[in-house]
Amino acid sequence: MTAIVKNCVDPLPGSSDVLAAQNRISHLVVNTPMLEFQTLSERLGFNIYCKCENLQRTGAFKFRGACNAVLGLLEQGQLEGVATHSSGNHGYALATAARLHGVRAEIVVPEGVVASKLAAIKSTGATVHLCAPNQAAREAGLQALVDAGLVPVPPYDHVLVIPGQGTAALEMIASADQLDCIITPVGGGGLMAGSALAIQASGKNIDIYGAEPEGADDAWQSLQKGEIVRDIVPNTIADGLRATIGDLTFPIIREYGSGILLVSETEIIDAMRVCWEQLKVVIEPSSATVLAALIRYRDEFKGKNVGAILSGGNLDLDNIAFLTEHA
Amino acid sequence: MTAIVKNCVDPLPGSSDVLAAQNRISHLVVNTPMLEFQTLSERLGFNIYCKCENLQRTGAFKFRGACNAVLGLLEQGQLEGVATHSSGNHGYALATAARLHGVRAEIVVPEGVVASKLAAIKSTGATVHLCAPNQAAREAGLQALVDAGLVPVPPYDHVLVIPGQGTAALEMIASADQLDCIITPVGGGGLMAGSALAIQASGKNIDIYGAEPEGADDAWQSLQKGEIVRDIVPNTIADGLRATIGDLTFPIIREYGSGILLVSETEIIDAMRVCWEQLKVVIEPSSATVLAALIRYRDEFKGKNVGAILSGGNLDLDNIAFLTEHA
Repeated sequence: MTAIVKNCVDPLPGSSDVLAAQNRISHLVVNTPMLEFQTLSERLGFNIYCKCENLQRTGAFKFRGACNAVLGLLEQGQLEGVATHSSGNHGYALATAARLHGVRAEIVVPEGVVASKLAAIKSTGATVHLCAPNQAAREAGLQALVDAGLVPVPPYDHVLVIPGQGTAALEMIASADQLDCIITPVGGGGLMAGSALAIQASGKNIDIYGAEPEGADDAWQSLQKGEIVRDIVPNTIADGLRATIGDLTFPIIREYGSGILLVSETEIIDAMRVCWEQLKVVIEPSSATVLAALIRYRDEFKGKNVGAILSGGNLDLDNIAFLTEHA
Repeated sequence: MTAIVKNCVDPLPGSSDVLAAQNRISHLVVNTPMLEFQTLSERLGFNIYCKCENLQRTGAFKFRGACNAVLGLLEQGQLEGVATHSSGNHGYALATAARLHGVRAEIVVPEGVVASKLAAIKSTGATVHLCAPNQAAREAGLQALVDAGLVPVPPYDHVLVIPGQGTAALEMIASADQLDCIITPVGGGGLMAGSALAIQASGKNIDIYGAEPEGADDAWQSLQKGEIVRDIVPNTIADGLRATIGDLTFPIIREYGSGILLVSETEIIDAMRVCWEQLKVVIEPSSATVLAALIRYRDEFKGKNVGAILSGGNLDLDNIAFLTEHA
């Protein structure tokens, strides 16, 4: 996280913020289906219910946090516009949320980004600023927009974004009778932290787990060490999980999380294929981590009702040979 | 259709049979999600709601008709068992429906069938009889089972199967406020005929269209000619739609259908990719015909609310290079 998008002065969001987020955005987001993953449940010996955020607007749960940020900022007063740097789902989500409310959005996008993602952001009418594909250029590009009066909305470490992400878990808890636990992918930690707050808001006794690639295990290491470990060079196919856990998400996950479950690259790809083939929904590698974790750590979940959040389904179909080469 | 699976002596099923089917099977089938296909709706200028039967048990709507057949036969008295020949979704659906009710199932399967489909059928506990991969051997294999006292359940032309398939449309009509039309793929015609009867049962003014590959246009030709055209050699990637329209399905479609919309192989593949990429659900080529038809004949649907049945999602992921080679 850079200085301009870090929110060290912000208080941590709480469970009431998730309820407020739901009131703000429920008319804008898709209450995505919960699909019972019957074949995998039978194979593993426990019940798996998948919350399909890949079927969310913009193809990922990121739309929830972005919507809550735009609406929350509008409530706080005049909003010149919003800005972020992104090569993935967050930029598209923020641009879409802004457009819905007539708010200006400017997105710094690194050159070389997948063409379909660039086209998606542009289709919202947002202004795109291409920059060199490195972190310094991205941050400099965003700083220029902030200097011009736009409000930065980071992808996860933000008091409005985290509760927005938590609304998916609220919907899960309302639609399923007796969940024993919820599992989400963990990259920056926005979805896992938001889900933890949602569980608190529900007053129910539900565990929350994070699934993380072994090749980007900063959340796991940070929890082991008791402080955020930032010097990890991520190496994983799960491109949505390469971010480092945040200053806001980390303390929430440390307080409420039941554990981080690490999975290998092979397990991610195998789980992704199982999902496409048997559940019949398109998920990106980041989402497959949760199914991979359920398969690998099946003994932990015997006899339980598990809610798994499939976080997104955005990927380049021209580049999925790994799905079959591996088999 | 062969002599043993044709039901010339059966009366045509009617709209009340669809209501009866729903009463029989609603506790067994998944009330599959209706997804609004937002990006395609915006592109085409009308509202598209997709009934996701690819998310049905066994991965296809075929489970509905198979369940209704097994339960309906059980109501009629003692049932020695059920049998069919199949290289695809119907065999797996019938075997699964039979297992649920403790009914013996024996399925004649041509050698060379996709390994995953064979494994799926076997996983139900059904007895599999491999035969030479030609129609004569399949029919001979089934005849032997019928001679042994099993009841043949054909894939579409059956008084219990057609109403069972119609229950998907009943669910659509109940969950959407004002559908102007429903579109289904048409192969043997079971889904389209069943949907037509469901619309009659609803008492609503909804048109029913069929989408058919140009390379397997027997329904289209049959409607033109006023009688079933049987001498077509199907040539299409949509393997679920290579069957010939049936003696029971044809008169129903002729009476109630608003038209057959033909689509090319290229249009099918393009639509399949659009679905995977934007709706994020895995559909097989047969299902893509309905989206291809909406894209090609968009002017017919301007301003309407269209319900599209995505019929199934079973395909071999090792064999999807055509999706990207074409692009």
